[in-house]
Amino acid sequence: MSVAARQVVLGRRPHGAPCAGDFAIQHITLGAPRSGEVLVRNLWLSLDPYMRLFMNDQGGVHGSVPVGAAMPGGAVGEVIASAHPALPLGSYVVSMAHGWRDHYLADGGQLQPVNAPKALLHRFLGLYGLTGITAWGGIHGVLKPGAGETVFINAAAGAVGSVAVQLAHSAGAKVIACAGSDDKGAWLTGALGADHFINYRREDVRVRLAELAPEGLEMMFDNVGGEQLEIAIDAMKPKGRIALCGAVALYNSENYRAGPRNLFAVIEKHISLTGFNAGFYFSEAPRIIDEFAAAEATGKLIEEITVVDGLDAMPHGFVAMLAGHNRGKMLVRL
Amino acid sequence: MSVAARQVVLGRRPHGAPCAGDFAIQHITLGAPRSGEVLVRNLWLSLDPYMRLFMNDQGGVHGSVPVGAAMPGGAVGEVIASAHPALPLGSYVVSMAHGWRDHYLADGGQLQPVNAPKALLHRFLGLYGLTGITAWGGIHGVLKPGAGETVFINAAAGAVGSVAVQLAHSAGAKVIACAGSDDKGAWLTGALGADHFINYRREDVRVRLAELAPEGLEMMFDNVGGEQLEIAIDAMKPKGRIALCGAVALYNSENYRAGPRNLFAVIEKHISLTGFNAGFYFSEAPRIIDEFAAAEATGKLIEEITVVDGLDAMPHGFVAMLAGHNRGKMLVRL
Repeated sequence: MSVAARQVVLGRRPHGAPCAGDFAIQHITLGAPRSGEVLVRNLWLSLDPYMRLFMNDQGGVHGSVPVGAAMPGGAVGEVIASAHPALPLGSYVVSMAHGWRDHYLADGGQLQPVNAPKALLHRFLGLYGLTGITAWGGIHGVLKPGAGETVFINAAAGAVGSVAVQLAHSAGAKVIACAGSDDKGAWLTGALGADHFINYRREDVRVRLAELAPEGLEMMFDNVGGEQLEIAIDAMKPKGRIALCGAVALYNSENYRAGPRNLFAVIEKHISLTGFNAGFYFSEAPRIIDEFAAAEATGKLIEEITVVDGLDAMPHGFVAMLAGHNRGKMLVRL
Repeated sequence: MSVAARQVVLGRRPHGAPCAGDFAIQHITLGAPRSGEVLVRNLWLSLDPYMRLFMNDQGGVHGSVPVGAAMPGGAVGEVIASAHPALPLGSYVVSMAHGWRDHYLADGGQLQPVNAPKALLHRFLGLYGLTGITAWGGIHGVLKPGAGETVFINAAAGAVGSVAVQLAHSAGAKVIACAGSDDKGAWLTGALGADHFINYRREDVRVRLAELAPEGLEMMFDNVGGEQLEIAIDAMKPKGRIALCGAVALYNSENYRAGPRNLFAVIEKHISLTGFNAGFYFSEAPRIIDEFAAAEATGKLIEEITVVDGLDAMPHGFVAMLAGHNRGKMLVRL
């Protein structure tokens, strides 16, 4: 048995913002699974901002993808040939590595079985997967909002941000959401429960924060880094706390790892900056997913997705996501 | 009544490392205290690294001292004329502002009375004052070391560092102390109880940390900032915690407020950076001082001071302290 498969490879390293032409589609042939392996046909692929980091030649835990190699990422698919006893034909599995491709062969022990109806599978890449667990980690693992406290959340209409807004709102916090279009703003303050909206493309974030939180911010959930982090540090109350989730404003820069130019303010104000990622909260995933499902059932949590159709459209979808054209989680449907 | 007084003023703004010639001595005449005021003759003046920030034209909570104005700082002195009912002649008072001068007039309500024998007064600028409370805040307020955890403390032979080393050691932590001479190293691992010493002037801190803590650091107490903070971030274990106390390596640079070039690593490793300063712990000072006195009585805590004699020597003492020529707290005796 063999399967004709396609995968998206890194065609060249971008300087600055990537474009769809930085990727290429590669055709490969996959053989039958050997003992312990499964052959998987992907059904949904995840698109996430952190994937931009794979395109760099810098190190970091995300690693660097060699030019010509397949891009890694999250995927959910169906086992179509199996030499692993626990993953029979027709099983559904999530992989954190084998995204950006339509089929793959992998050691079954590295995959996470998903026991859910086919119509719900994509959710294990979003709210019930990396995205939701990330948002939960930042809000409940790091920030732990108290009722009435004010939190500033940027990239708030994105996958993680839109969940974080809802979790903070449900915890009784006052949410100041920041994103790049007034349409997103209407959604954030409407469906998602944000108290205030800042459009960073046409408003001065520093001025708006001073208006909306004249006493200062207790918390920030930072997906953006760079200048927005610096502005928020200046706007924090003494003993404020910041959850560092991502730095998408820096991913196209020469050093996405760089800290803010005003870090010393955290000494002056006894501020905490705590970085985190979903990996530190995966062990709590079953409880978190139950919590999410209960919140959905009472209308307190919604998941928004932006769907891209087909592997050929994936590079363009990725570029569009980095430019902020998505709302909620961006997924590729195969 | 009038008193001929002298004070150290900022003569010019330094670029890079300051020199004694950046200061000047100014003669002034102080009159009798008006209602609510006291006239104080200082006995001891504090010299602290953060005073370098007053010399900059940048803002920050430390403020900027105008050229020609007196330098601010801590001092302990004796009331020699009083128009404040609670501060009779002969009272001892600490001021956080009226250092760098031999006499001053001030509102008595802004001063902290000290009820202690004259021979102990200087300690209220050191272990029982800003220095000790800062060290306590970093160790017990922020880091909260668990027994057996490893902490990296830099500028460890300085005023705050030398107290932090002892507090961490007493809490059962493994202490890796860093300073700039082997004499300091012998003192740190001898009298102060540090487990290991790194001489940053002749050793590669990154390499030495990898040798001394191959599994990584649980904690860092950072007085230095800059490259040492970056190295420690790379050397931290997942979920490590860093107390940011000062950034003396940056005080002479163009932007002492700048963050590390590898902040993104805190996202990858779920690290916390928490800034702090003594101001957040002053309300606990009586309890902290009792705790320190008890530890001294059992030989578990010592205070080292480096004394400079006279106001004329103060500028040179300050410059020498920034260059690391002191051990423990540097004080000026008048």
